[in-house]
Amino acid sequence: MKLWDKNIKSSEKEYAKIIEAFTIGSDRNFDLQLAEYDIRGSLAHAEMLSQIGLLTLAEWTVLKTALLQMLKKVKEDDFSIAPGIEDIHSQIEFELTQSVGEVGKKIHSARSRNDQVLVAIKLYLKDEIRKIAIFSEQLFKRLQGLSEQHRHHLMPGYTHFQLAMPSSFGLWFGAYAESLTDDLELLLAAYRVCNKNPLGSAAGFGSSFPIDREFTTEKLGFKTLNYNVVYAQMTRGKVEKIVAMALANLAATLGKFSYDVCLYMNQNFGFISFPESLTTGSSIMPHKKNPDVFELVRAKASKIQALPNELSLLINNLPSGYHRDYQLTKEILFPEIDNLKNCLQILDFMLQHIMIKENILQDEKYKYLFSVEAVNREVLSGMAFREAYKKIGIEIERDQFHPHDSLAHTHIGSMGNLATEKIKENFYKIFNKIFQ
Amino acid sequence: MKLWDKNIKSSEKEYAKIIEAFTIGSDRNFDLQLAEYDIRGSLAHAEMLSQIGLLTLAEWTVLKTALLQMLKKVKEDDFSIAPGIEDIHSQIEFELTQSVGEVGKKIHSARSRNDQVLVAIKLYLKDEIRKIAIFSEQLFKRLQGLSEQHRHHLMPGYTHFQLAMPSSFGLWFGAYAESLTDDLELLLAAYRVCNKNPLGSAAGFGSSFPIDREFTTEKLGFKTLNYNVVYAQMTRGKVEKIVAMALANLAATLGKFSYDVCLYMNQNFGFISFPESLTTGSSIMPHKKNPDVFELVRAKASKIQALPNELSLLINNLPSGYHRDYQLTKEILFPEIDNLKNCLQILDFMLQHIMIKENILQDEKYKYLFSVEAVNREVLSGMAFREAYKKIGIEIERDQFHPHDSLAHTHIGSMGNLATEKIKENFYKIFNKIFQ
Amino acid sequence: MKLWDKNIKSSEKEYAKIIEAFTIGSDRNFDLQLAEYDIRGSLAHAEMLSQIGLLTLAEWTVLKTALLQMLKKVKEDDFSIAPGIEDIHSQIEFELTQSVGEVGKKIHSARSRNDQVLVAIKLYLKDEIRKIAIFSEQLFKRLQGLSEQHRHHLMPGYTHFQLAMPSSFGLWFGAYAESLTDDLELLLAAYRVCNKNPLGSAAGFGSSFPIDREFTTEKLGFKTLNYNVVYAQMTRGKVEKIVAMALANLAATLGKFSYDVCLYMNQNFGFISFPESLTTGSSIMPHKKNPDVFELVRAKASKIQALPNELSLLINNLPSGYHRDYQLTKEILFPEIDNLKNCLQILDFMLQHIMIKENILQDEKYKYLFSVEAVNREVLSGMAFREAYKKIGIEIERDQFHPHDSLAHTHIGSMGNLATEKIKENFYKIFNKIFQ
Amino acid sequence: MKLWDKNIKSSEKEYAKIIEAFTIGSDRNFDLQLAEYDIRGSLAHAEMLSQIGLLTLAEWTVLKTALLQMLKKVKEDDFSIAPGIEDIHSQIEFELTQSVGEVGKKIHSARSRNDQVLVAIKLYLKDEIRKIAIFSEQLFKRLQGLSEQHRHHLMPGYTHFQLAMPSSFGLWFGAYAESLTDDLELLLAAYRVCNKNPLGSAAGFGSSFPIDREFTTEKLGFKTLNYNVVYAQMTRGKVEKIVAMALANLAATLGKFSYDVCLYMNQNFGFISFPESLTTGSSIMPHKKNPDVFELVRAKASKIQALPNELSLLINNLPSGYHRDYQLTKEILFPEIDNLKNCLQILDFMLQHIMIKENILQDEKYKYLFSVEAVNREVLSGMAFREAYKKIGIEIERDQFHPHDSLAHTHIGSMGNLATEKIKENFYKIFNKIFQ
Repeated sequence: MKLWDKNIKSSEKEYAKIIEAFTIGSDRNFDLQLAEYDIRGSLAHAEMLSQIGLLTLAEWTVLKTALLQMLKKVKEDDFSIAPGIEDIHSQIEFELTQSVGEVGKKIHSARSRNDQVLVAIKLYLKDEIRKIAIFSEQLFKRLQGLSEQHRHHLMPGYTHFQLAMPSSFGLWFGAYAESLTDDLELLLAAYRVCNKNPLGSAAGFGSSFPIDREFTTEKLGFKTLNYNVVYAQMTRGKVEKIVAMALANLAATLGKFSYDVCLYMNQNFGFISFPESLTTGSSIMPHKKNPDVFELVRAKASKIQALPNELSLLINNLPSGYHRDYQLTKEILFPEIDNLKNCLQILDFMLQHIMIKENILQDEKYKYLFSVEAVNREVLSGMAFREAYKKIGIEIERDQFHPHDSLAHTHIGSMGNLATEKIKENFYKIFNKIFQ
Repeated sequence: MKLWDKNIKSSEKEYAKIIEAFTIGSDRNFDLQLAEYDIRGSLAHAEMLSQIGLLTLAEWTVLKTALLQMLKKVKEDDFSIAPGIEDIHSQIEFELTQSVGEVGKKIHSARSRNDQVLVAIKLYLKDEIRKIAIFSEQLFKRLQGLSEQHRHHLMPGYTHFQLAMPSSFGLWFGAYAESLTDDLELLLAAYRVCNKNPLGSAAGFGSSFPIDREFTTEKLGFKTLNYNVVYAQMTRGKVEKIVAMALANLAATLGKFSYDVCLYMNQNFGFISFPESLTTGSSIMPHKKNPDVFELVRAKASKIQALPNELSLLINNLPSGYHRDYQLTKEILFPEIDNLKNCLQILDFMLQHIMIKENILQDEKYKYLFSVEAVNREVLSGMAFREAYKKIGIEIERDQFHPHDSLAHTHIGSMGNLATEKIKENFYKIFNKIFQ
Repeated sequence: MKLWDKNIKSSEKEYAKIIEAFTIGSDRNFDLQLAEYDIRGSLAHAEMLSQIGLLTLAEWTVLKTALLQMLKKVKEDDFSIAPGIEDIHSQIEFELTQSVGEVGKKIHSARSRNDQVLVAIKLYLKDEIRKIAIFSEQLFKRLQGLSEQHRHHLMPGYTHFQLAMPSSFGLWFGAYAESLTDDLELLLAAYRVCNKNPLGSAAGFGSSFPIDREFTTEKLGFKTLNYNVVYAQMTRGKVEKIVAMALANLAATLGKFSYDVCLYMNQNFGFISFPESLTTGSSIMPHKKNPDVFELVRAKASKIQALPNELSLLINNLPSGYHRDYQLTKEILFPEIDNLKNCLQILDFMLQHIMIKENILQDEKYKYLFSVEAVNREVLSGMAFREAYKKIGIEIERDQFHPHDSLAHTHIGSMGNLATEKIKENFYKIFNKIFQ
Repeated sequence: MKLWDKNIKSSEKEYAKIIEAFTIGSDRNFDLQLAEYDIRGSLAHAEMLSQIGLLTLAEWTVLKTALLQMLKKVKEDDFSIAPGIEDIHSQIEFELTQSVGEVGKKIHSARSRNDQVLVAIKLYLKDEIRKIAIFSEQLFKRLQGLSEQHRHHLMPGYTHFQLAMPSSFGLWFGAYAESLTDDLELLLAAYRVCNKNPLGSAAGFGSSFPIDREFTTEKLGFKTLNYNVVYAQMTRGKVEKIVAMALANLAATLGKFSYDVCLYMNQNFGFISFPESLTTGSSIMPHKKNPDVFELVRAKASKIQALPNELSLLINNLPSGYHRDYQLTKEILFPEIDNLKNCLQILDFMLQHIMIKENILQDEKYKYLFSVEAVNREVLSGMAFREAYKKIGIEIERDQFHPHDSLAHTHIGSMGNLATEKIKENFYKIFNKIFQ
């Protein structure tokens, strides 16, 4: 059933089925996630219609009751799209008309499927961004906790994959915590782009009804409006892409961390390990303890990083105005939002069990890590840097280099001064703006 | 000449040339853009060294004079990287040592090539983001001006590429102005991510010198620090990618607008035109007036949109720590920053000459645009929307539909109420934050 | 149930559930498509084991019967992965052991889950490539048929979106038919890359059993082997990416064609149309006849074009050897294979109903299309090309240009000589190689 | 100077400069690489014109002499695009007219800038593909040589980055040789797509001159034609993208190999090394021997892998017919072709100096690599696989596992039977087709 069936002749029913099977596809699955937001949009729209006199107070009351009832069913997971109904919006309109009769049809005055979808997607994305921010916060706290806990546990630092200088688990965990801080900046930008009300743009050219868009803006909790109705429609695809950019950026942090974990669990490194129950074995090699969770976080992070480009390819070179192409933004973006939330949570879970190897740097093979220290010591005693560098270089070449065993990194952000509180401050400065 | 040439035997000189030709490549071209910023970084670093006693006041004075002299040459375009010098940082250090002797080498204490590059790139990106914001502002003003000027000129609005409803040039120009407003959100996020001082992270593991990173932060005008030194190094590639995302988003707006222009200049539409001198002809078709500028803005915008993915491919699945791969972020990102600035400027230039066709909608073929108006009129007279929709649908099918000729779009953001001032307010709210 | 459960203590059961939920995800859905191919691989492997004496003839007979029985169930859609079973391969091994006891376990000798998956994927991809080739052939024939049917129906040809020269529907349909010919080249390359047997590479390092890989190669109908066992494992992800490139290329043809259709259905062009039952209407605009099918083919084609990059991001910068990341190639690639087949079929369906507007070029606005003809006429009468070009250019400028109304395009590939048979020959030359 | 300057009024000269600066950009740099191919195209076209009577024999002789003279200058690097000349094609036409007068203009009959560019690009790409095939062959031979040389040197094999089973340098080098074999399949497909003559398609709609396209096809050495003139134009961008796919695939092999090298040079692995002169040091760490060449091959390989997507973004959603957007395919693709050739050559150079560590597996930490061997041994003695797996698993858990020290991998493609000749055969089967 489509709402706009006009008078297709019975002999053409077959064709309609083919077309619908192709055009609707798996879209209804993703649509279900929008149910709550579509109803909230409908509530605000209907109340506004009653304000400007397009609905009577009685009609609004009837609609409100019916919509709230439906919202309850949605929240109780007791709602689905019936076979033959095209999408969530049709389903809601259909049920509304079933339960309240003709007045159910009136809610469609002064809006179009286009702005109805736009507003539902924006409300949904705002909620999801907040959820992601909260899961990020949990991981942030976990990483900062581990950073403080392991501040004295040293590990090798590499550049070019080559042994470089001493580092510490304090620095390593803390680095990824700070990475989440920068990631929040994009998440906040995405949130702000979502926090503008498109409702009232109708099919992208506004309405000849005297609607009150500021009323719905306030009712729906948007901070401001996508004012220009042509632009409001133009945000379709663009908003999803901006959100995808924010997700991609966050995913990159998770993926990079997971790569480090896989590497450090490798027996040639052997810096960290996890309880056997959190790793997987092999069907033919009895000694394997594979870091599958981290490999899959890395893989899912790669997939999420592919999102912005996928959406760019979809919407690039489309002129202004709605095109049906935009329908696919849902099936592209929505499942990856869930993936990202899962990745954030599983990392937090895994990190509760991480085991750190101690005294790594006492192994002879790591002694050259201390060469820069030695160079610096000479400099602090007055030698020019380049000379000191040359001197230690020759010692190393002649195998005469012996490291001192004390480290004196004291400046802010170094292993002796992790700046945990400062980073936390920066984190919450951004985090809090997402929840204002 | 490389600074770290140790004692390569003469027979190996040949090899070194091959390796250098391959590794340096065209990198020096892009490096030249960093000269100013590297010197500014060196000035702050040297002053800090004098503060903590690693340089005497006399040494600092000598270095300052020499560096300021070099900065002057850079600003006068009187600076280049000599043959055999690997990069801009080596060139500056080389010239410094040439002009002030041994003390020139001392500036390298407590920093590494890694954080030296990081800080130069961030200072450069901050400046470029501001330039892009300013060019965006010019285009924004142009678009808003045209929107107001043509507020009464109607044009067809399309959905699915099908004639849909009446629109206006006021809406069309205004939509792209508002699009720039949202684009600024990401530009601001990118600016904030750049506005953190990485200097002092050395090779990504900090320094055993008692450096004062807050001092250089203030001197260089950064708002805060990349505190954690491992994270500071981790921003390499990540920051470029975030900036690329902001550019991509802005480019998408320019590309979409250009697509519209190419379409509307097509003779089947014929909505707009440009003076012949701003179009190009054909080598075999004497009647052609091609919109090459807009096609190339669109194409360059597509190229810029490819940037985030290009950078993702480069840096994805690299574990923490510096890798030489990051060198390529410069040749990937820097030329496209110039491209984007050119695109913003040429659009502003072209729009000074755009010519709008008037009375477009009087053509008979556009009459169905007014069908929604007609439906709404029935609704305002009390008919349920779905009934009204059906009635007008039948009129159209029987060719009995005649549009009214007055339009009454009055709600905010509609063609009768463009919200120009509101959009401007939103624009400057974000714009001003980039210049705080 | 995982095959490699060792002795996880009961208190750790909960953890295992969390890990499994995350690592398996939706993978089992995609795995089901591999059931047939895994069984075929198992049959070949078991027969080979009996050949080299690792299975007795009696054991092979028992296994063969059980596997063929399972294959029958798969083909009758009477097969699923039980809850708690990790993947299709475990399910098959589980059922086998259920039905034939201990001997069912013996089939795992001399192979690993890794090469088992590799061989199933390659067999699956070979089959799918052939299906895609066949659907491409149907569309090819349809397009060639329409090209011949409409060889005399002229339409405008555009360059830069500007009216350029006369074209024809014969040329337009024929162009897309020829495009499929080039697309087959990549499909053939992908087929050849898939047509190499990886079975016997075990976990990517071969086996100490004296297996006969050439025997399984022949049994499974592969043309040759991935000889080197390290390389055989390295094809994971790579093969999927190469297939994705071939699909992307084909999708680009479908997307471009669909874009043309959407444009030509636009009322400003109005070159083609479809019966109302094959278009969709609007929820608020009664006059709309939207080309949704073509918009969605275009959108799905864009999504398919994003595949190679998605796979590149997933597998780039992973060193040699299996990583769990590769699991995601299935959920990335498999659904898009179905999408592409659907797109090919729906286009063939839609084109059975396409309606062409006749006499398009008689409209006055298209007269300049004939200017090149006019120039050429002068040249054939002896004028230098540049002179002729100038002369006609001046006529156009002074509005004195009048087109002749006969067209004389006779060279091969032009509208008067469509080369339908030649293109067909080229098509089948490649097509047939996929079925050799 | 543009060829199609008509009568722009002097006051508009300024505008023209702005437009030209923007539209031409850096395009002329890339155009220069097409000079040879444009002249070859012109020679074939002119000779064809003389065959069909549009040029006299005398005119053809004059043109031929002048064009061959110009070709000589191009080959001697004595050719450039003069300031004010738009592109290589204009430059050649300009010089031709300078040297032979009016007859120089006649060569433009029956062709357009569009097919002139198409044919030059295809000829160029055919040549470049062959060069890349030859450099691939050199690397292939080097890898196979190293594989044979180090067939008895064992190394650990990893899956999930975890120690898995014994492998060998023979397998490792040989795997990348075989990888090049599969890469050739796509290169061959790309070559075939390029090997079709577009000349004669003019602006994409053919010509009313009675041209002989089969004559130019044979003269230029194309195997067949892009018959349909609309399709011939449609190959622009598409052909570049298909070539980019082939390059991307080859680049992925080089990138993956380089990643392995960087990892194996890491001190925690320490499997391979290079002479100091082929590595680079650090500005602050005297002990570093960085694998910069391999990091940059990896990075450049990532950049090349971004190409197909970059081209997809550029050309996706453009309807049929030429758009100026296509100009950018040159600046996107051409430099990366050079990059790929450099990467292939430098790897071949580096591999002449690679040093392999012997007896790696004697280190105690690698003993579990032999667990699968031990399981297999039990199986060959009659135990069921799953039982044997369990038994060895328990031995490992109780630290009672002791590896045997002989390896018996004898099947084809395993470390005892590298199949070097078979792989070579497969390589040349494809390689030779590119040079037929």
